[in-house]
Amino acid sequence: MSVLYNNTLLGRTCLNVYRKAGAYQIRFKNTGAKLLYNDYGDPIKVINKETVELKKPSRNEILVKMIAAPVNPADINTIQGKYPSKPSLPAIPGNEGVGQIIELGPDVTDFTEGDHVVPIASNLGTWQTHLLVTKDQVFKVPKKLGIVEAATLTVNPCTAFRMLRDFAALKPGDTIIQNGANSACGQNVIQICRTWGIRTVNVVRDRPNIDELKNYLISLGANFVLTEEELRTTDIFKKGEIDKPRLALNCVGGKNALECLRYLQNGSPMVTYGGMSREPLSIPTSALIFKDLQFRGFWMTRWSKENASSIERFEMLAELITMMTNNDLQGPAYEFVDFNNYKEALLNTLTIKGMIGKKYILKFD
Amino acid sequence: MSVLYNNTLLGRTCLNVYRKAGAYQIRFKNTGAKLLYNDYGDPIKVINKETVELKKPSRNEILVKMIAAPVNPADINTIQGKYPSKPSLPAIPGNEGVGQIIELGPDVTDFTEGDHVVPIASNLGTWQTHLLVTKDQVFKVPKKLGIVEAATLTVNPCTAFRMLRDFAALKPGDTIIQNGANSACGQNVIQICRTWGIRTVNVVRDRPNIDELKNYLISLGANFVLTEEELRTTDIFKKGEIDKPRLALNCVGGKNALECLRYLQNGSPMVTYGGMSREPLSIPTSALIFKDLQFRGFWMTRWSKENASSIERFEMLAELITMMTNNDLQGPAYEFVDFNNYKEALLNTLTIKGMIGKKYILKFD
Repeated sequence: MSVLYNNTLLGRTCLNVYRKAGAYQIRFKNTGAKLLYNDYGDPIKVINKETVELKKPSRNEILVKMIAAPVNPADINTIQGKYPSKPSLPAIPGNEGVGQIIELGPDVTDFTEGDHVVPIASNLGTWQTHLLVTKDQVFKVPKKLGIVEAATLTVNPCTAFRMLRDFAALKPGDTIIQNGANSACGQNVIQICRTWGIRTVNVVRDRPNIDELKNYLISLGANFVLTEEELRTTDIFKKGEIDKPRLALNCVGGKNALECLRYLQNGSPMVTYGGMSREPLSIPTSALIFKDLQFRGFWMTRWSKENASSIERFEMLAELITMMTNNDLQGPAYEFVDFNNYKEALLNTLTIKGMIGKKYILKFD
Repeated sequence: MSVLYNNTLLGRTCLNVYRKAGAYQIRFKNTGAKLLYNDYGDPIKVINKETVELKKPSRNEILVKMIAAPVNPADINTIQGKYPSKPSLPAIPGNEGVGQIIELGPDVTDFTEGDHVVPIASNLGTWQTHLLVTKDQVFKVPKKLGIVEAATLTVNPCTAFRMLRDFAALKPGDTIIQNGANSACGQNVIQICRTWGIRTVNVVRDRPNIDELKNYLISLGANFVLTEEELRTTDIFKKGEIDKPRLALNCVGGKNALECLRYLQNGSPMVTYGGMSREPLSIPTSALIFKDLQFRGFWMTRWSKENASSIERFEMLAELITMMTNNDLQGPAYEFVDFNNYKEALLNTLTIKGMIGKKYILKFD
């Protein structure tokens, strides 16, 4: 059997090969594993690994063998029961990932065995070796797309894309300002803006290796990188080095958000998608009435539910994949962790450190 | 001369009547008076009264003899130099009022001498006995419209109308919530909502005569009136006595605004048009991201400039006037003050007291 390599075929472990009625038949290993939690709580304690029997896909179903699935902060919060989107228990964690199709239901025509796909329905539970999904729950991605980029496609790049697209009619040459610019989403914002010709003012917290961080963000395409303190006294807008921003993206809140909105052009929106300072957004009345600033929030989970099969969603995914395969948009800093060592990935995500948050990605056999 | 009554004709003081070439000629008094300030500062100190020569209206001009003009808090702030809209000095204060046309320029066809008009251009300066305006700077109102309603038409009723119309697609039966419900604008909100079939939850500060205030607002059409403390623990939404609001109107800010937004339906806007608590609006991150609440501001001055001759503006004025002449919308509590005693009106407005702010309206001879 020349198609067998390392005892696997399309990622499935072959138990043995035999002849029946003159033809070769392959018996595959038909068990997988999943992580599962029965109660909300400390992820290290509530999550268990279980063996599962694999089912054959029926009709429109597809059996996907997972390749990689990241551990996102929102996954941790969901398991802790602290996230507004609460799956019913028991639940399999994980919302992002990439896998390979190993078996198609009899009615599935628009996919092929071996295709790489990413789950696009929420709460499918990607932290398992195999996903049995319906064909509208996954999106086919080209094999040339990197595993890391594919596994982390649907949260941060999409959040950045939508916030830049849906709240202000930005043209090439326009400016945006963002805080938490070194976040996973912030790095996507910088790169998408560079690709679209939009200029970025990026605000980060001061730190010992600030120049290293600035250089890194500038290498991604940032026009200006300022610490929160530098933002307070900057004269780049006064001097005309860059136009005042027409959009602000906020994942910090508190005083820093207030500093960012000071520079916004009248009538512009600030979009909040995080609150890392744990302080509320504090808005002077005059900014609302006289500057006509607008304050909105963005939550990718809601957008994806409301636009589950919208043309905008598939256009966005296609455009992001093109950026990635053109090397205009790179995946996050990451570290693969073997699926069996999932606790290590959870612990590392819970105690995230360093210049830019490293993404821990579960890697399956 | 039977048309002469009390020595006036169409509000103009007649000096004498004489015959020339066989026809009667009337000589009118051709001086008026205006208030004027040369510096920003304390209104009592910086404002002076001056006599002015009246000019004949040329071409498209109209000479209007003012009947009444209110003293609004924004007028005071403008004179103090504290308002974002700064007229160039010297300036005549006053932005609202009603007057009667006493002379038309030769090219004016769509007005008649004797018509009542309200100024609709900003910074015309209504605190003067006569206004020389172009015909597009005034709007004709029916004579059956009360003087108080006409003189106070373009600020508070219009602010209430636009905030209810432009930020949420409200249907009859929907609910809105507002704080500072006893403000001049808040009373308009209650009455317009009653006329449109929209239910209102009205929040006011506690005070000794709270029942009297509640009864007054209920007499205007309020469905519920709650003190700030009562709002915190109310169960009217839980019990289903009224739907959760689809719009919040905020003129207070601070903690009270925060209490109001707690009850808003997901995806709803809060519109800020004042900040009486002098505290900023403090928005929890989760209200933006997970509840998708939207925060906007409204400033009538900007709207009027941007919609100076829009069809929406004239439709709004017509609809408000119909409400007023149908007795669905009443003017504010008021007190007329003779124009010559303008300092009394200024002082009273600066030290506004009482259950509901009384409007001091300058009355001209």
